[in-house]
Amino acid sequence: MATIKDIAERLGISVSTVSKGLNGASDISEELRQTVLDTAVELGYTTKRMRKEEHKRLCIFIENMDYETANQFGYEIILGFKQAAYRDKWDVSVIPITPAFQSSEKYDTYMLKNGFSGAFLLGFSLQDEWMNQLATTNIPTSLLDNYIRMNPSVGSVATDNFEGIDVAVEHLVALGHKKIAFLNGSPGSMVSDQREQAFVASMESHGLTIDPDLMAQGYYVADSAKYHVPKFLELGATAIVCGNDLIASGVIAECRKHCLTIPGDVSVIGFDDLPISVHLTPPLTTVKQDRIELGKSGYYTLVSLMNKVSISKTILRAQFIKRESTDICKERRS
Amino acid sequence: MATIKDIAERLGISVSTVSKGLNGASDISEELRQTVLDTAVELGYTTKRMRKEEHKRLCIFIENMDYETANQFGYEIILGFKQAAYRDKWDVSVIPITPAFQSSEKYDTYMLKNGFSGAFLLGFSLQDEWMNQLATTNIPTSLLDNYIRMNPSVGSVATDNFEGIDVAVEHLVALGHKKIAFLNGSPGSMVSDQREQAFVASMESHGLTIDPDLMAQGYYVADSAKYHVPKFLELGATAIVCGNDLIASGVIAECRKHCLTIPGDVSVIGFDDLPISVHLTPPLTTVKQDRIELGKSGYYTLVSLMNKVSISKTILRAQFIKRESTDICKERRS
Repeated sequence: MATIKDIAERLGISVSTVSKGLNGASDISEELRQTVLDTAVELGYTTKRMRKEEHKRLCIFIENMDYETANQFGYEIILGFKQAAYRDKWDVSVIPITPAFQSSEKYDTYMLKNGFSGAFLLGFSLQDEWMNQLATTNIPTSLLDNYIRMNPSVGSVATDNFEGIDVAVEHLVALGHKKIAFLNGSPGSMVSDQREQAFVASMESHGLTIDPDLMAQGYYVADSAKYHVPKFLELGATAIVCGNDLIASGVIAECRKHCLTIPGDVSVIGFDDLPISVHLTPPLTTVKQDRIELGKSGYYTLVSLMNKVSISKTILRAQFIKRESTDICKERRS
Repeated sequence: MATIKDIAERLGISVSTVSKGLNGASDISEELRQTVLDTAVELGYTTKRMRKEEHKRLCIFIENMDYETANQFGYEIILGFKQAAYRDKWDVSVIPITPAFQSSEKYDTYMLKNGFSGAFLLGFSLQDEWMNQLATTNIPTSLLDNYIRMNPSVGSVATDNFEGIDVAVEHLVALGHKKIAFLNGSPGSMVSDQREQAFVASMESHGLTIDPDLMAQGYYVADSAKYHVPKFLELGATAIVCGNDLIASGVIAECRKHCLTIPGDVSVIGFDDLPISVHLTPPLTTVKQDRIELGKSGYYTLVSLMNKVSISKTILRAQFIKRESTDICKERRS
């Protein structure tokens, strides 16, 4: 477990200042105090004072999502949730879950038995047993990237996929690209469906023809690229929009295999802004999902539901990040 | 101005209990204290302690919306915003605004000059000059029923029109109605556009034919009914979904003029659940927008934006309210 010294080193401040922050001393600024507390949460140093009151317990259920190290998608989502929840003195348990467990124990029963006042669900698929049960639960529940119809106890949190894809297409159109391909992630998820709808709508709104052969669904892994990129290139695609950054990393590798340069011959755009995206060659132009904000919004949505304000959806802005994997279309340059 | 006695009478508690609530005494429950404070806000009794700190000022700009009495649409929205904001010690100014004023003074300038940290905008139309300026403002701004593309300083708050219309159509379908008409409110507003899209999508998803002659756009007033209802009735409509409760009140009156009974001959559904809807004859089945929640969400969205959590949209649940203006389709009964 982290010590006060670890926090001090991370922030470049003295141990005594950290101590003041943790103990709520009056002679440091509120902003610095909050930074100390947020860093303590991140490093896993939490005092009883920060989180515990009797019976104030929330939990995060997580499935199909890596979250244990800082470069994984779920890490900052959980961190953002905890940072916001600890300020209000909630204790937060993170519980990995399997489909088998969902068959053996009902959602409501599990929550009541363990004294949780509410939960945030990450990475669940619509086929999961607990997702069915959410249609009728009375327990305040927020969930990422999924949507439950008509239940005022359940709210969704997501990044605006429509605006995110639209701004990516708009960027490519401004660079003169017309033959734009789209390599999506896994079929049957709400996120994939929305990104595909968004791509079609955005191409249409920019007056571009949609070639069904320039659209494909793979999985949210780099390996997807090799099954679809050869065809895109054969058909003359000059730009490829990807369902996430991992797919984009595979697309870049696959283009190289075909002796094409990025962005000289092909422009590539990712989605998420995972930590790897800045380390790719070239650094990846992408659409950022702010995962700290997603986590905080997961908490704030849950608080609203617990206070009987029935939020159905909280949608966050996607943020376009221009790096070096996109450039003017080579046909316009020549 | 209201007195402590007014608050006591409204709540049926003693003056001394009210006083304890206002002053934060420790021997009353937190819940009762909050009820006292909320009622004080509603009656216009606010202590300095409740709202003032130097330079903590928010404002609500309002246009095209009545809000001065409890039966008007804007009243509870403003009340919900104030109740939530006063808990955090913000002072809130309510400022009616005109198109002419917007031409004479820029939004950002006005906000800075008057020391407002953020604003909630009600009733603005997309043609308003300030709506253009919101595309680039850096001032945290939440707005009801409108949407600004790509600006992380601006967030929208709305009720889920899609789910609201869908549940109304679903209710009518369950009662055996097939010839369902839709009389919408004013053209060119985001709300009207969404309710129309929702009606078309819901009819399709229930396997019903959409007859363009059974759809019309009027204005959000009772008078709209007389221009469109005669045609609907001529074409054999057995149910009419309305853009809001005022339109529905006009539809009921117009059906009576044609010697038809509600709900015996025609079922009618409103939208909003304005205070009048329970007093109509028959009491109106409608889709509720919880306006206190809309106001609170306007505040919470604004707080998120001020804390650099860039919420794009907060969508609240619509709530179906079954009263007496809908019944089994007469053709199924006979």
